[in-house]
Amino acid sequence: MITPHGRVPTPVFVPVGSQGTIKTLTPGEVKDIGIAMVLANTYHLYLRPGITLIEKVGGLHKFMTWDKALLTDSGGYQIFSLASLRQISDDGVIFRSHIDGSQHFITPELIIQFQERLGADIIMVLDECPAYDDSFEKVQMAMTRTHQWAERCQRAQKRNDQALYAIVQGGVFPQLRHQSAQYLTSLGFPGYAIGGLSVGEPKRVTLAMIEETVALLPENKPRYLMGVGSPEDLLEGVARGCDIFDSALPTRVARNGAFFTRLGRINIRNTAYSQIEQPVDPDCACYTCRTFSAAYLHHLFSCEELLAYRLATIHNLNFISNLMNKVRGAILNGTFSSFKDNFLANYKPTDERIRLSQKQKWLKSRNLTE
Amino acid sequence: MITPHGRVPTPVFVPVGSQGTIKTLTPGEVKDIGIAMVLANTYHLYLRPGITLIEKVGGLHKFMTWDKALLTDSGGYQIFSLASLRQISDDGVIFRSHIDGSQHFITPELIIQFQERLGADIIMVLDECPAYDDSFEKVQMAMTRTHQWAERCQRAQKRNDQALYAIVQGGVFPQLRHQSAQYLTSLGFPGYAIGGLSVGEPKRVTLAMIEETVALLPENKPRYLMGVGSPEDLLEGVARGCDIFDSALPTRVARNGAFFTRLGRINIRNTAYSQIEQPVDPDCACYTCRTFSAAYLHHLFSCEELLAYRLATIHNLNFISNLMNKVRGAILNGTFSSFKDNFLANYKPTDERIRLSQKQKWLKSRNLTE
Repeated sequence: MITPHGRVPTPVFVPVGSQGTIKTLTPGEVKDIGIAMVLANTYHLYLRPGITLIEKVGGLHKFMTWDKALLTDSGGYQIFSLASLRQISDDGVIFRSHIDGSQHFITPELIIQFQERLGADIIMVLDECPAYDDSFEKVQMAMTRTHQWAERCQRAQKRNDQALYAIVQGGVFPQLRHQSAQYLTSLGFPGYAIGGLSVGEPKRVTLAMIEETVALLPENKPRYLMGVGSPEDLLEGVARGCDIFDSALPTRVARNGAFFTRLGRINIRNTAYSQIEQPVDPDCACYTCRTFSAAYLHHLFSCEELLAYRLATIHNLNFISNLMNKVRGAILNGTFSSFKDNFLANYKPTDERIRLSQKQKWLKSRNLTE
Repeated sequence: MITPHGRVPTPVFVPVGSQGTIKTLTPGEVKDIGIAMVLANTYHLYLRPGITLIEKVGGLHKFMTWDKALLTDSGGYQIFSLASLRQISDDGVIFRSHIDGSQHFITPELIIQFQERLGADIIMVLDECPAYDDSFEKVQMAMTRTHQWAERCQRAQKRNDQALYAIVQGGVFPQLRHQSAQYLTSLGFPGYAIGGLSVGEPKRVTLAMIEETVALLPENKPRYLMGVGSPEDLLEGVARGCDIFDSALPTRVARNGAFFTRLGRINIRNTAYSQIEQPVDPDCACYTCRTFSAAYLHHLFSCEELLAYRLATIHNLNFISNLMNKVRGAILNGTFSSFKDNFLANYKPTDERIRLSQKQKWLKSRNLTE
């Protein structure tokens, strides 16, 4: 992809910096890891520090001092998951801030105006995100409204240097996913996201819905699978034709002590690591593994030292960035399928039941900023 | 000063990394700021991760990946301020860990053995630290015991590549300070610290006690004023002949949003900074000020983003490091006195009453790791 802020080779993983910062890292460190695009969140930035301030200082790139590609999510998902006292109508949504309880009214037109003033390279329509266990009727209504809002977003767009992506909804219902993909593609967007997945449903359902949706999206437009970021899910998403991925998972689990390795996730808090003089991953070339022993990282996590979270974040983003490099290389060589099989043969994913229960727990008592 | 890990120009400020890390920063960042020596704490490292582990991985320099000079405090002050259920006898001290309540018995000989196994360049005797409002008799007893322990520490030392410093005690009583300085200098140490100050007493008392003590310490040995780190106190300490200073203050207040400037401390959390497009200190050449606006830093602090603490720490350590550079330059040029007057004429110190009440508050509900 070519953006006003540089080329973004795909498939690409986009780290989440909801509040205009990839947690614990400087923009320079993020760039050094090889990240070509980061995500910020319109809902979060609208509430704090406010769109007007960011516009005044010259836009979000300048505010964050990030000069590469930038994607802003509309915040639809956050309004429906973080904010309280929502009242949704066809017009828009009234909600209360999760920070101070203040009341706000947002419309598709406003969300586009906000994102134009923030100035990211890729911007997103406002969508209504049903819960993963909502009924067919409820999901259908949310989808229909998402379609109307997508059209209004498209009409509201004034800048021509930002790519506005639509978001396919439809929950876990193939019929709705088909309708949504067909309707939105008929409107003609420069890119399409698959929303409302990886929100608590079993993984086989996620994969089935990706397949149902991708089949109806144009081949020559980027397809963006929202909320996916574990190594195994990235490979499955790429295998099904997705080009862009974002998720807070690699950075969030890092702050809990989980380090990605080619054999699976390890947790540095485990007592076994307290005595290990080698790096967490001796084959890894990231700053953390080049510099520190597993024993030292274990010590920093035991003491809840702030440096711990940063060193783990560097490692995990480096791991995912390298993985995507290898994925792109394998695609160019025509060896992606065997690369994927090899990787997954070695990589032990986090047990799905544990993963689901962790996800549910997280969705309930979540870190409000990712 | 020349140490086995490089030259340390004096007067020098030594940042505090009690648990083997300058909070939020990598060793490389600390070095880039121009820091020549850092402090770690034997009490903290003994409890976690343990002396044996650090020795096994090759010593504290290697564990932290810090290749410049290193000073370990004995932990006397921490045993007397953090640990509970203390029983002090001439033999040593029994205390309970502030982490898990486990019971430990420490002697002067053990503290030297621990510090020899950690391997810092400068090590400290075990001292008994009275509270600043203790009676003359209590302070006198603690001083006498500190003297006996200093002798035992000296006899217990086996390595000859570490400089063992004695610690002058005596509270706020000139007579005791005199006795302590005379007794310890008669034993002949390679350096002398002034302990038990800046623990809650009024500043004029601190300065008077420094003067009383320094007058009796040899001119050709380093004098180390423990626990002092505000810009104005550093200048007063240098003016009175001190060479080494350590304090968690610059890094601790950074994490509360306080940035040093030549006019005084400002707090970035103040709403006034939310709109400022300029750096916190436009004259400052640190990474934080070169890269980010005050508005962005204000935003990071508002959101309690971890990057905030790091950027403020970089700024404050850079400020203190530059200040000490200028102090050394002025001393060499014979202009220290006018440099100090100029600096203090511009610099508005934090109000002493506020400062004292903050310090008391901090001593009570303190961050246990500094």
